[in-house]
Amino acid sequence: MSYYVCLHQEGINSIPGLVKKGLAHNYTVVATSVNPNTLPFDPFEDDPTYPGTLLNAVEWTSRIILILSDVAIDSPNAKVRAQAERILMRDITWAEHLQTNGSVMVRLRGPKNKQLAEIIKGRTKGNWFIQVPITNPELGTFEHRTDATDEEVSQAESIDPWSWWNDFRFEMDHSSKVKVVLDLRDSDRPSRETVRRWLGEPIEAVMIPSSLFVRNRYNYFVLHGEWQVIIGHFIAARAKIIVSVNPTDKSLLQYADYMNKLINDNCDSHNLNSYENALEIPLQPLCDNLDCWTYEIFEKDPVKYKLYQEAIQKALLECVTDEEADKKLTVVMVLGGGRGPLARAVFNAADLTKRKVRVYIIEKNVCAIRTLSNMVKTLWPKKDVHIFSKDMRHFSPPELADILVSELLGSFGDNELSPECLDGAAKLLKPNGISIPCKSTSYINPLMSAVLHNNVEQFSGVVSAFNYGYVALLKSIYHIAEPQTLFEFTHPNRTDQIDNSRYKELSFTVSKDCVLHGIGGYFDTVLYENIILSINPLTHTEGMFSWFPMFFPTHPHTVKAGDTISIKFWRRVDAEKVWYEWQVCSPFEGCVHNVDGTGYNMRL
Amino acid sequence: MSYYVCLHQEGINSIPGLVKKGLAHNYTVVATSVNPNTLPFDPFEDDPTYPGTLLNAVEWTSRIILILSDVAIDSPNAKVRAQAERILMRDITWAEHLQTNGSVMVRLRGPKNKQLAEIIKGRTKGNWFIQVPITNPELGTFEHRTDATDEEVSQAESIDPWSWWNDFRFEMDHSSKVKVVLDLRDSDRPSRETVRRWLGEPIEAVMIPSSLFVRNRYNYFVLHGEWQVIIGHFIAARAKIIVSVNPTDKSLLQYADYMNKLINDNCDSHNLNSYENALEIPLQPLCDNLDCWTYEIFEKDPVKYKLYQEAIQKALLECVTDEEADKKLTVVMVLGGGRGPLARAVFNAADLTKRKVRVYIIEKNVCAIRTLSNMVKTLWPKKDVHIFSKDMRHFSPPELADILVSELLGSFGDNELSPECLDGAAKLLKPNGISIPCKSTSYINPLMSAVLHNNVEQFSGVVSAFNYGYVALLKSIYHIAEPQTLFEFTHPNRTDQIDNSRYKELSFTVSKDCVLHGIGGYFDTVLYENIILSINPLTHTEGMFSWFPMFFPTHPHTVKAGDTISIKFWRRVDAEKVWYEWQVCSPFEGCVHNVDGTGYNMRL
Repeated sequence: MSYYVCLHQEGINSIPGLVKKGLAHNYTVVATSVNPNTLPFDPFEDDPTYPGTLLNAVEWTSRIILILSDVAIDSPNAKVRAQAERILMRDITWAEHLQTNGSVMVRLRGPKNKQLAEIIKGRTKGNWFIQVPITNPELGTFEHRTDATDEEVSQAESIDPWSWWNDFRFEMDHSSKVKVVLDLRDSDRPSRETVRRWLGEPIEAVMIPSSLFVRNRYNYFVLHGEWQVIIGHFIAARAKIIVSVNPTDKSLLQYADYMNKLINDNCDSHNLNSYENALEIPLQPLCDNLDCWTYEIFEKDPVKYKLYQEAIQKALLECVTDEEADKKLTVVMVLGGGRGPLARAVFNAADLTKRKVRVYIIEKNVCAIRTLSNMVKTLWPKKDVHIFSKDMRHFSPPELADILVSELLGSFGDNELSPECLDGAAKLLKPNGISIPCKSTSYINPLMSAVLHNNVEQFSGVVSAFNYGYVALLKSIYHIAEPQTLFEFTHPNRTDQIDNSRYKELSFTVSKDCVLHGIGGYFDTVLYENIILSINPLTHTEGMFSWFPMFFPTHPHTVKAGDTISIKFWRRVDAEKVWYEWQVCSPFEGCVHNVDGTGYNMRL
Repeated sequence: MSYYVCLHQEGINSIPGLVKKGLAHNYTVVATSVNPNTLPFDPFEDDPTYPGTLLNAVEWTSRIILILSDVAIDSPNAKVRAQAERILMRDITWAEHLQTNGSVMVRLRGPKNKQLAEIIKGRTKGNWFIQVPITNPELGTFEHRTDATDEEVSQAESIDPWSWWNDFRFEMDHSSKVKVVLDLRDSDRPSRETVRRWLGEPIEAVMIPSSLFVRNRYNYFVLHGEWQVIIGHFIAARAKIIVSVNPTDKSLLQYADYMNKLINDNCDSHNLNSYENALEIPLQPLCDNLDCWTYEIFEKDPVKYKLYQEAIQKALLECVTDEEADKKLTVVMVLGGGRGPLARAVFNAADLTKRKVRVYIIEKNVCAIRTLSNMVKTLWPKKDVHIFSKDMRHFSPPELADILVSELLGSFGDNELSPECLDGAAKLLKPNGISIPCKSTSYINPLMSAVLHNNVEQFSGVVSAFNYGYVALLKSIYHIAEPQTLFEFTHPNRTDQIDNSRYKELSFTVSKDCVLHGIGGYFDTVLYENIILSINPLTHTEGMFSWFPMFFPTHPHTVKAGDTISIKFWRRVDAEKVWYEWQVCSPFEGCVHNVDGTGYNMRL
């Protein structure tokens, strides 16, 4: 993922000159019309504007965004349309000749773009950047007015450029080859919700007119604070920058330097960049064994085991008073010991609280056992620690535990089967014993994300893609509404007839027209008392990266401000597996996804 | 494609120590047994040799080749076999735990490896390096003896380790996850043909025992000249190096430096590295238009247009005597002018011979026309040059040509339809006119290439892969026999009933047991008199890269020394297309590939 700052200029007389000018002013890419003269068409034209040999092939493809003529391809007038099509096809033919898998940009002129979509669908090469105004200037006014009538607002919304893009995207069958270039020209500052919604779209770049820059007190060109924030959001979502200038503009270098600084300040660089929006089939740690790579990633979480240690400390203090500390032994069982991080948390907690512990580590992965055995020998030779190479569901302990510690949680709380495992292990715990964690809760909300939708489609060749839940670092998304509580599980569960199947229907209100692409899934868990781990976006534990959210796809459907989205969600269980089913049942009746767990399921 | 020099050592007491020792002596990778102790098995083993946390996950995967225990997994004794399987499965489980998509090495102990193949087929992770002796020591002796009887030779060949690998490869269903590590230990220098045959296999590395090094007169460790040449061949074919040493060896740095120098000297670095063994569907320039990228690559050929220019010079001198030079005009038609390289060759030839030319450039790609028009205007404003935006088959010229110049040739000569195009253009030429080129000839030979076969298999999901001919820079191949002449086409073809369909059967003698994976295709063309372009490996024009050979796949089949391989090849033509069919009919009856041109065909 690399950023660029692109110089957009029209009315030039030399493309190599523009490239050179761009590079001299810190723009690595330039954008300009592919055919500055609309006519003539004749291949024998007297004045062929420029030859294909003007730049070399690498430069054509990597240095230039070619802009197509801005013609009325969707005019109601057939004659105008035919002429526009001739011009557009000439431009496209030439652009495809110059670039190998290059970048072609074209502007949406209004709400009707069916003909344009047909033409682009017919092309097989390259990426298509669709230039869309971020807001309609008229609409912008309404967003900041409190005195507008409902009718005025609704009329204004019908000319919302997001709707132009949305209709176009449906005409394009959600093709991943079209991306948005958001044009800030002539626009008022958009509302926060408008910005948030655009963040759920496949944004290639933000196009900034030089007129948006203002001089600060040092006479240097900058953007207003509000624009800084807005553009910063887009940069954080991996949008690139296009600066539009007039041929006579003398401040190119200032714009580029300013934009590069803004990129630096907002680029949200972190070690997990490569995971953004990437869909992964969730782990099945109950039936598969983890390898060193996976253990190592989880062991590196800077927050999780610290909070576990705090929870264990509290539990130890609860079990044993200061007076008893010298004599009373607390039996702690670590269920799923992995390569030792929870055992280490137990020993640390015992040291800090000055409590005596005996630790049983149960682990089914014989390879992890090998590392654990070595740890006992080299790190914990004097500790009261015992390793068992077993599935916890079939473990007969030498004695019962005062405290059970486990981390069997997945991104959706129960999706790595912690309820089933901990129910099976409840017999290992004394009647008044403590389970860490003691409760986990899942949450869902409706999401718009064209990028995640495209990634689901890419899985379609391999699996029944819309019947899977995926783990994903959600980046290019719009939260249509805030998450709500779905299912709860408490531990230990002492009820006679344990039923871990669940069903719930939740309703969410749409605040802005958008597209429903799927359902976000999150969880939080109470380790002990007030010590909580959470990946619910509303309460996310700071700095913890062990769990990415889940994404349950649905088929894309436009929803309107004020609509109620109702989602039915099932957790189903049979003898061999556990699985989820989900269905959107309002404002439209969607299909039930993953019926009978034929797609994603968790094997017992 | 990056090389490594790997340090192989057994009997070590610390893997991180070996990595450190390797790095300190310029080995970026090390190889050693995954479990140095064959026993115990118990996961609670008293002395677990080492934990998974010994190295981090990146180091496990990138720095180490893990060697499995060398056990009798294919023993005829069931008890021995069962014990061997226990040991092997323990090793594999541990290796897969340590590495994510890593590299595991195991040795072929003899001709029988069915059980080993079954075990490896069942695993889903990682790459498998199969250690095979380059020759059997006994067999090696025979290759250099002239007095051995036929029977002795045949008996020796039955213990040829290549056959062990070949049987194993068939057991593995030609899986691309197994690669060969050629072990030079205890081996005589192999014959040239033995080396050549191994070059057709997927070689990961060559394993060199330190005992192979000898001291030169400066007391520095080097390899004998013959070994240098042999290992140089493998390096050129992208094999990496593993040096096997004893724990007490003090010359590690000398070996590594020597091998790194050998890599530098033999690494065959060129700009087209990324094309090696990569299969491409041939271009269809008659129905598709080329883009700037493709034109630019071909225009860069340092040899092709120089030879064209020489041919045109000769033809001009033939058409016009020195006495006529001032007055007589030669009409040259360039058929398929592209972005001007042939026209430039004509003008250069005219200048050098001081002959007067009128040049007609015929080109059907309107985008190339645009560049040509600009060239005429800017580079050739005073030349007698005329551009026609036409398909040459439908062009009515203002006058007939003395010389036709074209470059419509593909990798197989006629596969870009030069016969059909030039037949159609023959009417443009005066009765005694000259065609450059005037003749083209295709050649084929049988090839072994496990790598190309794997690449064909990878296409199978997308197209009917065994019914395609591919363009490929052939790297990992063994020429089973030398190329022979297949089809010829001459220009202009003035016969009444032109028939460009062809059929021929060719026979080749196998000189060494090997696997037939497909047919190599090449061509040469006579531009004029003795000026020839050739990609036939026997006569390849030095430095010319415009055409890679073709590869026509067949289903893999082992053939024996002395066998006759007979290949039938058809060029078929109907109203819409031209296509090839091919069939191996001896020593086994293969299927006819590409019947009716349902796979690869050239659209008219």
